[in-house]
Amino acid sequence: MAPQKKLQGLVAATITPMTQNGEINLSVIGQYVDYLINEQDVKSVFVNGTTGEGLSLSVQERKLLAEEWVAKGKDKLDHVIIHVGALSLPESKGLAKHAAKIGADGIAIIAPFFFKQLNKDGLVAFLRDVASEAPGIPFYYYHIPPLTGIKMRVEELLDGMKEQIPTFQGVKFSDTDLLDFGRCVKKNEQGHLVLLYGVDEQLLSALTMGATGAVGSTYNYLGRASNLILEAFGRGDLLAQKYQFCIQEFLSFVIAQGFGVAQTKAVMTLVSGIPMGPPRLPLSSASEEFIANVKTKLESLKNCPYS
Amino acid sequence: MAPQKKLQGLVAATITPMTQNGEINLSVIGQYVDYLINEQDVKSVFVNGTTGEGLSLSVQERKLLAEEWVAKGKDKLDHVIIHVGALSLPESKGLAKHAAKIGADGIAIIAPFFFKQLNKDGLVAFLRDVASEAPGIPFYYYHIPPLTGIKMRVEELLDGMKEQIPTFQGVKFSDTDLLDFGRCVKKNEQGHLVLLYGVDEQLLSALTMGATGAVGSTYNYLGRASNLILEAFGRGDLLAQKYQFCIQEFLSFVIAQGFGVAQTKAVMTLVSGIPMGPPRLPLSSASEEFIANVKTKLESLKNCPYS
Amino acid sequence: MAPQKKLQGLVAATITPMTQNGEINLSVIGQYVDYLINEQDVKSVFVNGTTGEGLSLSVQERKLLAEEWVAKGKDKLDHVIIHVGALSLPESKGLAKHAAKIGADGIAIIAPFFFKQLNKDGLVAFLRDVASEAPGIPFYYYHIPPLTGIKMRVEELLDGMKEQIPTFQGVKFSDTDLLDFGRCVKKNEQGHLVLLYGVDEQLLSALTMGATGAVGSTYNYLGRASNLILEAFGRGDLLAQKYQFCIQEFLSFVIAQGFGVAQTKAVMTLVSGIPMGPPRLPLSSASEEFIANVKTKLESLKNCPYS
Amino acid sequence: MAPQKKLQGLVAATITPMTQNGEINLSVIGQYVDYLINEQDVKSVFVNGTTGEGLSLSVQERKLLAEEWVAKGKDKLDHVIIHVGALSLPESKGLAKHAAKIGADGIAIIAPFFFKQLNKDGLVAFLRDVASEAPGIPFYYYHIPPLTGIKMRVEELLDGMKEQIPTFQGVKFSDTDLLDFGRCVKKNEQGHLVLLYGVDEQLLSALTMGATGAVGSTYNYLGRASNLILEAFGRGDLLAQKYQFCIQEFLSFVIAQGFGVAQTKAVMTLVSGIPMGPPRLPLSSASEEFIANVKTKLESLKNCPYS
Repeated sequence: MAPQKKLQGLVAATITPMTQNGEINLSVIGQYVDYLINEQDVKSVFVNGTTGEGLSLSVQERKLLAEEWVAKGKDKLDHVIIHVGALSLPESKGLAKHAAKIGADGIAIIAPFFFKQLNKDGLVAFLRDVASEAPGIPFYYYHIPPLTGIKMRVEELLDGMKEQIPTFQGVKFSDTDLLDFGRCVKKNEQGHLVLLYGVDEQLLSALTMGATGAVGSTYNYLGRASNLILEAFGRGDLLAQKYQFCIQEFLSFVIAQGFGVAQTKAVMTLVSGIPMGPPRLPLSSASEEFIANVKTKLESLKNCPYS
Repeated sequence: MAPQKKLQGLVAATITPMTQNGEINLSVIGQYVDYLINEQDVKSVFVNGTTGEGLSLSVQERKLLAEEWVAKGKDKLDHVIIHVGALSLPESKGLAKHAAKIGADGIAIIAPFFFKQLNKDGLVAFLRDVASEAPGIPFYYYHIPPLTGIKMRVEELLDGMKEQIPTFQGVKFSDTDLLDFGRCVKKNEQGHLVLLYGVDEQLLSALTMGATGAVGSTYNYLGRASNLILEAFGRGDLLAQKYQFCIQEFLSFVIAQGFGVAQTKAVMTLVSGIPMGPPRLPLSSASEEFIANVKTKLESLKNCPYS
Repeated sequence: MAPQKKLQGLVAATITPMTQNGEINLSVIGQYVDYLINEQDVKSVFVNGTTGEGLSLSVQERKLLAEEWVAKGKDKLDHVIIHVGALSLPESKGLAKHAAKIGADGIAIIAPFFFKQLNKDGLVAFLRDVASEAPGIPFYYYHIPPLTGIKMRVEELLDGMKEQIPTFQGVKFSDTDLLDFGRCVKKNEQGHLVLLYGVDEQLLSALTMGATGAVGSTYNYLGRASNLILEAFGRGDLLAQKYQFCIQEFLSFVIAQGFGVAQTKAVMTLVSGIPMGPPRLPLSSASEEFIANVKTKLESLKNCPYS
Repeated sequence: MAPQKKLQGLVAATITPMTQNGEINLSVIGQYVDYLINEQDVKSVFVNGTTGEGLSLSVQERKLLAEEWVAKGKDKLDHVIIHVGALSLPESKGLAKHAAKIGADGIAIIAPFFFKQLNKDGLVAFLRDVASEAPGIPFYYYHIPPLTGIKMRVEELLDGMKEQIPTFQGVKFSDTDLLDFGRCVKKNEQGHLVLLYGVDEQLLSALTMGATGAVGSTYNYLGRASNLILEAFGRGDLLAQKYQFCIQEFLSFVIAQGFGVAQTKAVMTLVSGIPMGPPRLPLSSASEEFIANVKTKLESLKNCPYS
């Protein structure tokens, strides 16, 4: 494995742009990359994850999209992480191999969630079989129990994981259990792992527990605002809380109206001007009313934190 | 659509035979077909479903397996239904098209369960898009809320489904909510739909509510015993309950030890002599202890119902 | 224990009548008893259960109500079962002792559900401590996992229960798991226990599995219609299904509008003419719209099953 | 309402000492008060809550215990808050009235959880009816969705709560949803309310979000260690994290072995030397093995944070 800059700071969980016909729209990825860097100050991406509707795409689409992100992100982005998790082991392995071949900076794998493997050895075996197809790049475990129902504590998973999977390099931790998260930080005193937090609405609480970065959909359009949290926290400035509260005011507002990937696409289109298109079935598009409400809310938050 | 014999009676949710290396093992399908017909008196199959680890296979594997079942079942089986549900709409559509092309007798679709569509229109739109790729063969909705978390009542789904999806022809109803099931039966007074029950351990209770058939994994190895329930029920014979209790005694025994697809494979290997092989990750193989226990239990049940 | 007529057939889970001020209204219990017997052909009652808002009453109110039911039901009702379950062991014990003293025909106990005892011995110890305060009358275990979250299989509980609790005489089984129910029936081949089903909307399915009676709120106002199911089933008449479908049509209709104890009170007031009053907080009264809808629905069902 | 010192800092959720016979043991409360103050530096208590098995006690026991805590805490403790929540409204009202009469410093109420009121108005009506029985002392809402299943966002509850319940003065927030918690802090910019966090294992994360105090069982025996977190956080010292990690190491250890109120009683007995006795059914006593393990663990943590 070639030496690499360590993954840290904000990572955008990328949205998958689609045409009105529901095809993936590769043509705007270049613009998307520039937007993240220039407008949101975000330099790493997590492709084909939940926000990217990765599991709603075909294997072929996932590969094309991964290629495009790697190509357009080259020399611009710090890290292009490809999510290669799938319900099917051979498909997941194929995606991992492909990600390595095209030069991705890492792969991530969600726990399979149709058949729920509740035994640690079984889960690690699945992850290992996939990760071993990409032996030259880092592997990140994607922990998101609210969506998978796999609640196995990450603290427990860490024990022996590196021995089983030499490329294991960190976790995207998308849960509110900060006991488990804190335990991971403690066990990672040597700093070999990267512990990225994935619940955007309470990023600050995880920073306090030792998170060194975060992956989330919010960072697509509120990356700059979220970076202010990181910076303020880094210098011990209480402003961090005020910045977090601005993010929370927005997220609480949209969550009350039903906020999912379809709505995230609409918000990103609105904020960035880059057409993200509709979501793919089984998701339904955000309503016009939702979009109008978001517009007004974002306007009202322009000066947040209010002085 | 050519006239077809109506799907009824027992349908085996087929197991996917695998080699010790975890590859699908097509070589035993012919033997499997004969076994079902000759030894279990089961003449219809549901391929690539939950029991078949359909979602753990690659798209290519699913196609190969479907082809083999259709080929070997030709002129022997009454119905070969291919489950084509997937998280990815394009993949599901491709599978539906393929099933129609190879001459399957019907397709079934599970509700997508990563993004959970809780709105009826959205769910029906997904099903419609898939079913329309196989316009010449029946479509069955695969309702299994304990695994998908999609609890939308089937009674509600039935309203307007046929108008939206002309090939809609029935439901595999895998839930214990017999109010919902009864309502479906009542709404189907004209008998256009086939309502198959999918909780093997309480088949009799659904027959009372009007089920005209059943799909399940148990019918692979306890088909003959389960047919006795259907027959006794059909002639109003109280023996039906005794036969059901025999099945329950077995299932209660194995469930208490942890019973899933991996264990079903082991039981089928034991009973049929056809090697089903190990399950694929994320599932782990049944333990030796489990297999030994099952052997003893089956032996003790040989004369059930005891006179 | 004096010899007793065995509890069987329909048991009404009684509603607790309240004044507009929210006080229990003992004055109508006598009328209620007569109504059940004469208009609904229901001769046994289950007092202070879920439908009776038993856990929303004070201990003193529960005692007063129990006394009134026993007094008014004397020589009229076959069985007055008092639910004495409570979160607090001493309160539950006191209620059991009281029930025995006033001459109740049995007590029932729900599993405590704040602290959830997942170990069989612990649960049985609680039940035993309560039941032993009423050593001369039958004890029924009230199994209702959807409300308690205590999913311990009743089949498992039965093993050794009678040895631990000599007065153990049956179960009110309010769950749709008919494997577990069937297993209980099978284990009760000697017929020492009474297995009463508690999911009114699918009573017929439990009869098929061997239920010899049922406890439910529906039997307050649809007792006569439900008795038709029992009778038809008893003589092997397929009309049983049609009768069940009539009940289902009503229940499905009200469930779709939100159906709980508050709504049950409104329906009973409407059907029986006996004022049941509002529910007690935390429940809120049924809406006027709900009541109007129910009225119309009941009217339309008058001739069900339609010939 | 007399002017009062504001509730802040650590509040011990008190354990209810019991004799070996399972009676409440009032005789050690005085010693318990002194222990909290002198050995744990904790000066406020929350009596009859979850940890105190409040819902497992009789109403009479709850009153006796409340009296004892008020009597022994007088002139020593800053705040004696009595939890008066109950499933039964009249019992809860009686407990509130009693708490006010004996001079408690506040009452707390858990949302009723048998019948789950999902409508805000209904829930607030229940809380108001109880709180109005104690019009002269503060009322705190006890939010603990993992135990009650009542997930209504506190942010939403705050809107209009003070108008409905003039004595409303704060929340014991026992959940990991720090978006909701942060929103409450933001809405409380005027500082009228006290927002106490109740998930001990991640106290630090809530401090970052603006918590001004905490209520928990851990503070009975790790109060001093937890106060170090508050103090370090107050002065912006990164040691706060290290202190939190020590607490986490202990809690993670015991949680892995099954940690509930019974185990808390055992730990407190071990650490304080005050006999807490067994828990009351339906809880079962901690095992000897658990106690031995805890002993060893606590020993090993003596020098935590290790320098």
